[in-house]
Amino acid sequence: MSIIRRSIEVKYQLRVHFTQNVFDPSNVVLRTVLEGDADGSVNSGHKALVVLDESLATARPQLIRRIEAYFAVHNDGPALVCAPIVLEGGERTKNSYFHVSEIHSQIDRYHIDRHSYLVAVGGGALLDVAGLAAATAHRGVRHVRIPTTTLSQADSGVGVKNGINAFGKKNFIGTFAPPHAVINDFQLLESLCPRDKRAGYVEAVKVALIRDKGFFESLEADAVRLREFEPAAMQRAIYRSAELHLEHIAGSGDPFEMGTARPLDFGHWSAHKLEQLSEYKLRHGEAVAIGVALDTIYSRNIGLLAATEAERVLNLLETLGFDLYANELAHMDPDGQPLVLAGIEEFREHLGGELTVTLLKTIGRGIEVHELNWSKLLEAVRELAERHEKKGQKVLRARG
Amino acid sequence: MSIIRRSIEVKYQLRVHFTQNVFDPSNVVLRTVLEGDADGSVNSGHKALVVLDESLATARPQLIRRIEAYFAVHNDGPALVCAPIVLEGGERTKNSYFHVSEIHSQIDRYHIDRHSYLVAVGGGALLDVAGLAAATAHRGVRHVRIPTTTLSQADSGVGVKNGINAFGKKNFIGTFAPPHAVINDFQLLESLCPRDKRAGYVEAVKVALIRDKGFFESLEADAVRLREFEPAAMQRAIYRSAELHLEHIAGSGDPFEMGTARPLDFGHWSAHKLEQLSEYKLRHGEAVAIGVALDTIYSRNIGLLAATEAERVLNLLETLGFDLYANELAHMDPDGQPLVLAGIEEFREHLGGELTVTLLKTIGRGIEVHELNWSKLLEAVRELAERHEKKGQKVLRARG
Repeated sequence: MSIIRRSIEVKYQLRVHFTQNVFDPSNVVLRTVLEGDADGSVNSGHKALVVLDESLATARPQLIRRIEAYFAVHNDGPALVCAPIVLEGGERTKNSYFHVSEIHSQIDRYHIDRHSYLVAVGGGALLDVAGLAAATAHRGVRHVRIPTTTLSQADSGVGVKNGINAFGKKNFIGTFAPPHAVINDFQLLESLCPRDKRAGYVEAVKVALIRDKGFFESLEADAVRLREFEPAAMQRAIYRSAELHLEHIAGSGDPFEMGTARPLDFGHWSAHKLEQLSEYKLRHGEAVAIGVALDTIYSRNIGLLAATEAERVLNLLETLGFDLYANELAHMDPDGQPLVLAGIEEFREHLGGELTVTLLKTIGRGIEVHELNWSKLLEAVRELAERHEKKGQKVLRARG
Repeated sequence: MSIIRRSIEVKYQLRVHFTQNVFDPSNVVLRTVLEGDADGSVNSGHKALVVLDESLATARPQLIRRIEAYFAVHNDGPALVCAPIVLEGGERTKNSYFHVSEIHSQIDRYHIDRHSYLVAVGGGALLDVAGLAAATAHRGVRHVRIPTTTLSQADSGVGVKNGINAFGKKNFIGTFAPPHAVINDFQLLESLCPRDKRAGYVEAVKVALIRDKGFFESLEADAVRLREFEPAAMQRAIYRSAELHLEHIAGSGDPFEMGTARPLDFGHWSAHKLEQLSEYKLRHGEAVAIGVALDTIYSRNIGLLAATEAERVLNLLETLGFDLYANELAHMDPDGQPLVLAGIEEFREHLGGELTVTLLKTIGRGIEVHELNWSKLLEAVRELAERHEKKGQKVLRARG
């Protein structure tokens, strides 16, 4: 009969600050981030609630007191409503709604409103949980992310997504919600264990492979320094990786992926499934390293990528210290097919629409394909197993 | 040290279709809505999951079969994945996360992806629950709303919000998520009980009062016809109300209320609190009628609104059949203050920032104020009680 049509545009500013010692009282980055409203007005009287990753709080027993001292010194800005809330981090914490609910109850209790702040300090999983809580309390309170792992600083923490896992599927529940600001404090990486220092490198490799050959070459040049966790090399890798991820979000024309836009997810279809099969014992970055290796070999096997380039990719990942195999690759379904391949359909379904997988045409340039060849995929899985065996390590042959 | 800045814009099309007999096989509105992707491509192969308000399913026992028949006839569009899922509607259904979770599990089970559809058919509460589930599954599957109450067709169903209640606060948990489309089927209103037919009128009165004097006068002219639920008069009221609400969202420049933009919430600070105090026995519209009356009297008492205009407002609401009093107005806190007044701070906190309450300057023009006078508010509450007593009805004097 009739129709009313209107269009709306919602604008967001994405800001990623790079700093050291964010909670040093002389560092004004956080104060500045919490000080001004988007319209330039000062919002003293507003509040801040801080959630903190348990592993960081354990590694740095002074951190809680330092955060409290920071807010005490900058007492003309938002008030810290209570001591930082320590929550379990790591991907497994995303397997229930519990922590989202817990943060909601604190937002209610301490009267954090849409103009107040939920500041989350931690790894990508904690930021995902806190981001979902912030995005859904009062339909969105301001969320400041202080990522504390290489991976979250280089990739997930600087993006526009949050989420928790459900029904055995990673990030089944979540929203697109750009944070108020992100603060990457390189100094916070120092207390990480080697696994968490390393895991994020792979997102830098991934985005270099599909977007920026020069960056890939600089990662090759820095590979030994990165393996030895030399801070300057880590900072270079993180900065450029974060920049390329932000450029992708800002340049896609569809940052919330409502149409056919896709995230920078080379190597991710299998990675998400491997994480789940490992019950999240594999770090996301460790799983992505395997996924990148798998799709690199597949790209070569279908004649898309030169063999020499494929070998450079695998070599870089190994030089950085990644294992390019996990026993979960050998987990079979009742028909004898690798369970990891079920990740293809789950990946398609999570993003919606047609299957879209990024493959490598050459180092620095990804291309999207809409179908995968099953037997070539099986070959690629076998090659990873053989490569792993040659390195003298035991490979679990099969597991129901 | 350094900062990366990017800006992003997210564009949405808001579409509200007006029709009759949406599930008649010859009606192509729903088919058209489900047929095309935003980019113009046809998305056959996609799926639709339908959730249906229990009270509607009870009032119209044929509806489930009619919905199934509709999809069977239009079998070149998205497939109906299962029989419509019947869920309890009404505000109290929003008091737990249970139904959100239940819809999530069906979205998972039937593989509804971001390009598939969750179609919700029901009152505002059911649409709020389904909207939250749709917005958070896979970070957003397409949500089609078919509102079936006067209120949801005139106001909440055509907006960009969803939500559930938590911590005793209405809509504490929710998101801003524009629906893929809204279909207002006037014929669906016929089986409503009188309370649900009437309740939505108040949102038309509300938006007329603060935005459109001519609309208010047409509501006055139609008042007896509306009281008698004459379909043509109801359709006129709903259409213009929906249009003004959409214009507000599209014209605010801040449709997700991240800055200082406010919804069209004249009379709502007390309404939300009254609903909660009544344990959601009061309909939202019934509570808003009292809230509009309260803020109209308050506007007059502080010398903002002419007495004759205030009386016109109260008369229109009463002619439409609204009670301008509820016993919850007499619920007192331990200090002898009306509990409803706690709604002021809860209202401020939900929207964030400075308290912003709309008052009436004249019929057709609201103005925003940032403080309320406590004793004048108490006077306004007393006046509603006295007006009610004069009408010969018993007023509960106080209740701890």
